[in-house]
Amino acid sequence: MIKTAIVGGTGYTGVELLRLLATHPEVELTAITSRSEAGMAVADMFPNLRGHVDLEFVEPAGAGLGQCDLVFFATPNGVAMQQVPALLEAGVRVIDLAADFRLRDAAEWAQWYGQPHACPELLEQAVYGLPEVNREHIATASLVANPGCYPTAVQLGFLPLVENGLVDVSHLIADAKSGVSGAGRKASVANLLGEAGENFKAYAVSGHRHLPEIRQGLQQTTDAKLGLTFVPHLTPMIRGIHATLYATLNETAGDLQALYEARYRNEPFVDILPAGSHPETRSVRGANSCRIALHRPQGGDTLVVLSVIDNLVKGAAGQAVQNMNVMFGLDETAGLDGIALLP
Amino acid sequence: MIKTAIVGGTGYTGVELLRLLATHPEVELTAITSRSEAGMAVADMFPNLRGHVDLEFVEPAGAGLGQCDLVFFATPNGVAMQQVPALLEAGVRVIDLAADFRLRDAAEWAQWYGQPHACPELLEQAVYGLPEVNREHIATASLVANPGCYPTAVQLGFLPLVENGLVDVSHLIADAKSGVSGAGRKASVANLLGEAGENFKAYAVSGHRHLPEIRQGLQQTTDAKLGLTFVPHLTPMIRGIHATLYATLNETAGDLQALYEARYRNEPFVDILPAGSHPETRSVRGANSCRIALHRPQGGDTLVVLSVIDNLVKGAAGQAVQNMNVMFGLDETAGLDGIALLP
Amino acid sequence: MIKTAIVGGTGYTGVELLRLLATHPEVELTAITSRSEAGMAVADMFPNLRGHVDLEFVEPAGAGLGQCDLVFFATPNGVAMQQVPALLEAGVRVIDLAADFRLRDAAEWAQWYGQPHACPELLEQAVYGLPEVNREHIATASLVANPGCYPTAVQLGFLPLVENGLVDVSHLIADAKSGVSGAGRKASVANLLGEAGENFKAYAVSGHRHLPEIRQGLQQTTDAKLGLTFVPHLTPMIRGIHATLYATLNETAGDLQALYEARYRNEPFVDILPAGSHPETRSVRGANSCRIALHRPQGGDTLVVLSVIDNLVKGAAGQAVQNMNVMFGLDETAGLDGIALLP
Amino acid sequence: MIKTAIVGGTGYTGVELLRLLATHPEVELTAITSRSEAGMAVADMFPNLRGHVDLEFVEPAGAGLGQCDLVFFATPNGVAMQQVPALLEAGVRVIDLAADFRLRDAAEWAQWYGQPHACPELLEQAVYGLPEVNREHIATASLVANPGCYPTAVQLGFLPLVENGLVDVSHLIADAKSGVSGAGRKASVANLLGEAGENFKAYAVSGHRHLPEIRQGLQQTTDAKLGLTFVPHLTPMIRGIHATLYATLNETAGDLQALYEARYRNEPFVDILPAGSHPETRSVRGANSCRIALHRPQGGDTLVVLSVIDNLVKGAAGQAVQNMNVMFGLDETAGLDGIALLP
Repeated sequence: MIKTAIVGGTGYTGVELLRLLATHPEVELTAITSRSEAGMAVADMFPNLRGHVDLEFVEPAGAGLGQCDLVFFATPNGVAMQQVPALLEAGVRVIDLAADFRLRDAAEWAQWYGQPHACPELLEQAVYGLPEVNREHIATASLVANPGCYPTAVQLGFLPLVENGLVDVSHLIADAKSGVSGAGRKASVANLLGEAGENFKAYAVSGHRHLPEIRQGLQQTTDAKLGLTFVPHLTPMIRGIHATLYATLNETAGDLQALYEARYRNEPFVDILPAGSHPETRSVRGANSCRIALHRPQGGDTLVVLSVIDNLVKGAAGQAVQNMNVMFGLDETAGLDGIALLP
Repeated sequence: MIKTAIVGGTGYTGVELLRLLATHPEVELTAITSRSEAGMAVADMFPNLRGHVDLEFVEPAGAGLGQCDLVFFATPNGVAMQQVPALLEAGVRVIDLAADFRLRDAAEWAQWYGQPHACPELLEQAVYGLPEVNREHIATASLVANPGCYPTAVQLGFLPLVENGLVDVSHLIADAKSGVSGAGRKASVANLLGEAGENFKAYAVSGHRHLPEIRQGLQQTTDAKLGLTFVPHLTPMIRGIHATLYATLNETAGDLQALYEARYRNEPFVDILPAGSHPETRSVRGANSCRIALHRPQGGDTLVVLSVIDNLVKGAAGQAVQNMNVMFGLDETAGLDGIALLP
Repeated sequence: MIKTAIVGGTGYTGVELLRLLATHPEVELTAITSRSEAGMAVADMFPNLRGHVDLEFVEPAGAGLGQCDLVFFATPNGVAMQQVPALLEAGVRVIDLAADFRLRDAAEWAQWYGQPHACPELLEQAVYGLPEVNREHIATASLVANPGCYPTAVQLGFLPLVENGLVDVSHLIADAKSGVSGAGRKASVANLLGEAGENFKAYAVSGHRHLPEIRQGLQQTTDAKLGLTFVPHLTPMIRGIHATLYATLNETAGDLQALYEARYRNEPFVDILPAGSHPETRSVRGANSCRIALHRPQGGDTLVVLSVIDNLVKGAAGQAVQNMNVMFGLDETAGLDGIALLP
Repeated sequence: MIKTAIVGGTGYTGVELLRLLATHPEVELTAITSRSEAGMAVADMFPNLRGHVDLEFVEPAGAGLGQCDLVFFATPNGVAMQQVPALLEAGVRVIDLAADFRLRDAAEWAQWYGQPHACPELLEQAVYGLPEVNREHIATASLVANPGCYPTAVQLGFLPLVENGLVDVSHLIADAKSGVSGAGRKASVANLLGEAGENFKAYAVSGHRHLPEIRQGLQQTTDAKLGLTFVPHLTPMIRGIHATLYATLNETAGDLQALYEARYRNEPFVDILPAGSHPETRSVRGANSCRIALHRPQGGDTLVVLSVIDNLVKGAAGQAVQNMNVMFGLDETAGLDGIALLP
């Protein structure tokens, strides 16, 4: 059994990670920390866990993190980078579900996250935890930066095109729509049901923190200078991301359906739908799956890729468990075989 | 492995039963029938099942139902009673998720369902599949009538009071609220998102088919003449039933919290919350659980019982699997250990 | 033109009052105050008002409240009672949309609202603004306490029964369901779309602040000691209250449908539906209307009354405008003839 | 008073048209027809209209359409073209809210709508009812083709760019999201709350009927060959369209914000938001308004235009009333001054 703990588990990423770990056959969850909620039973905050998780939130100091094989950080951005160096020092492996180690360039990180990075020397060492790209490095990593939700859906959708030089990478467009759980579980006016319900809007069009993360991931697979317009939207539902991707095809583009199927043939969590399909976010609700479909409207040179994930699973906690499975040599699907809940 | 088949699986009860059976460790699902959709891949209708269920819908005739250990009927009311006698004759055990065998009185059945009963002789033999009441009879039953969704939530909430004669049973009130999946997956104007969204209404106040079912179940546990007012409501969500129950306490009522806890202590799927709690439907979304809390506002003689289930799980498919487990001597929780999806 | 101002208009009651006053033919809106948002354009907070309301939020001190004919308070509970005495002194009439002047008993107010009342001497003078009961007193009132949302729906539903002694008033039950806008526009975790969406729950079953208000209103119309069980619920939609009311009929109860129709015949904003109807909250969305229907299931002695309002209109801002119309001798329907938005 | 009638009013376009006409100061609504619902009170189908619209649905034959000044068709595609010629012959003016007269090319119409056009000779004569483009022709038109919902949002968003040759028109992208009321009020499985709720998906990516309509409208304003990729999506809400538009700027593009403001300065129903804004669909819910904002992320050459409307108002019934106002020389805003309902 892998001995694990969660630092900061009072958000949606935390409860989803608890749900997955609680039934994972190879994991022992020893502690979950929260300074603000220490002493509260986890099941009192998350009533779905009642009868399944008996832990209370504890102060980080007494959590025995140093004795764990693996510690997950499900903290706000900027917290993990304060604590990770000591844990790595102690030989504990770490998966950070926040953004602290996703960008390799400390200056760029500081610019987008509004603070200097606390341990820039670790940025080089951290492995970006998208198994479909970095599986081998993840297997041996001490520190895994779990990808953001939008970046997961967008990169998986664009990768086969960019890797193979089939599109004009200088003008990629990612029009992404997210359920509100992506904004987290903190008190806010903007995400009240009274505000976000029965409403649709774009946000952060001038620049969202996931833009440099997506750009970095795609740029690594091509020599051409990559240009991306990324427009996130808030849609009145709880879970799910739908990325609608647009790219102009080069003349050399061949059988794209076959290309995508080949690229992801051995991926347990990427599912290429038959040509002309329309993947629905509900088809992956609660499941660690990315479903992708291709369209070439009117046979023109604009390719439309539709990519859906559950932002809390393949876009966060599920991908973290997948990374853990890879890191510890388990079956990559262990604990991740749940079927999406529909309706 | 128990060899099973599903007759009629194109509704929400069907897809939920498929989801549960697909990961059940002791079940082999051999066929699912649908006259209208024969030849269609199940996963084309229910995209969450893609990669998990490889079956196609088949015509009932070629489904090999007679070779099964158990056949589930997830058909509209009035279908199962046409086919069940032959299956029982062939030694196949049956769980009917529809209403055909829930009422013991054929005349009453005919009145509420608008047609004569096709095999009234089986009504006596059929066992009402509420394990918390009938576990022993279910274990040996050939034919189990799976309870309705409202009846499950309402009976589990009222039972300890009625069994023990603690309330005035002549004036029970059940004010129940359901998500729209309770109305099924058939095309209708009333259940369009454009109609049922952002809207709340009562329906069938003059008389709902679940009224006689609830009354029958509760009446069996008391000699006093039972009177029940049952008002169902439609609430703009997909899954979940919340029953708010009102009863006037007799003077002899003692420690009701202790009574409820004792009544359900050994029940794996009934959870009595601490006094004063407010169970949420989302705490059981996707899980085979009924959560119950008691309130006695201002210390008066009106007791308020709050009871929540997922109408498609403990109110339908999950309870059917629970009944199957009982019938075949399996661990009653086999295949039913999934944790509710929250948020 | 009636010169009006709004104190505290950053909540849902405020924006709805602005929407109604902006098109009211007899009203000049001179100021809207907010300490925290002073200087912000109202339309920047509430984008629906862009092009319709040109005001900015201003500090209360410079708002010229003393020069108004009428000031609306749309503030949190406990604010109006600090400022109203001075305004009344200055000859300004006041409608308080909060709870400060709803209860006549200062001790009871202090108990439910957790603070001593700042001007208990005004409680006697304040008129409870339910026009269907107090129209004549409202007409001449200096200070009107606008009713709560639940109390409006519940009282209008029960009044004909209680006034005429037709039911056992010692065991009234009000099972009420509200959209989340009833909880206001303040940042909170519980009302996030991620928490309140796809979820149904009761709350405050042990005692809600609207309980004493309803009890006081109904008790005034009967000599018998009134007992009320009031259970509010949160339903995943934005606007609307549905009250399901239960009462045991006395033997003398006659033609109740005719009684209700007669009681409300001249009321412009109470609509008695044909017997057996099921009023929908969407039928009053955005409209100052209460629709009511009666049911007597199975001809028993339990009467079920269904009563729906838009909590922000007939349950708050619309009723305030109605009260204003009465106070200033205008056509009671002035500015309130908008039709509900459906779908 | 303009004497009007509605042919086919049982859908969402119909009820919204009724809501607007019922309070329009210059309109007398004499009849509303429905073969299937003849004899039913309109208010029984649409409870929001109770007390506001006293009409019953009548058979078309007895509706006196020939005596009207104006007849609205709110029928399914293909119906109006059967009846319009006779009405025009009788001197009645017509606004068709369906698609029968939107395309000028009968062959293209036949291809997209799957049937030959019944009166291709009228296609030339019909005026496309987008007042922001065709106001003068609408004023004198006998037959107005009311635009589709997506085409309204997309054209208003793209027009200033295309008219002025500022973008590469060969690769326009319109990523559009619609609430489910756009799919109408007919019984269907796909639009059940249980299917469309908590779900997001694209549809008709290979080709939607609004594509040729948008293309035709934009092509008329430029000599360059126009290429458009149009991807519609279904979002889990009732009303609202959000179009996110992408275009590559030419080097000559100047102050686009000023350009848009100038283009729509005198338009009562198009509102250009300050640069960098994010218009929300709820800001126009129930209102005849299109709100538009411009973004140029990272100062690149991709322009992002955000355009929102209420699909049932500016996208259907409201625009029809606006067209009527223009046709009959009324104030263009008559009956259209309602403020959007928020929250």
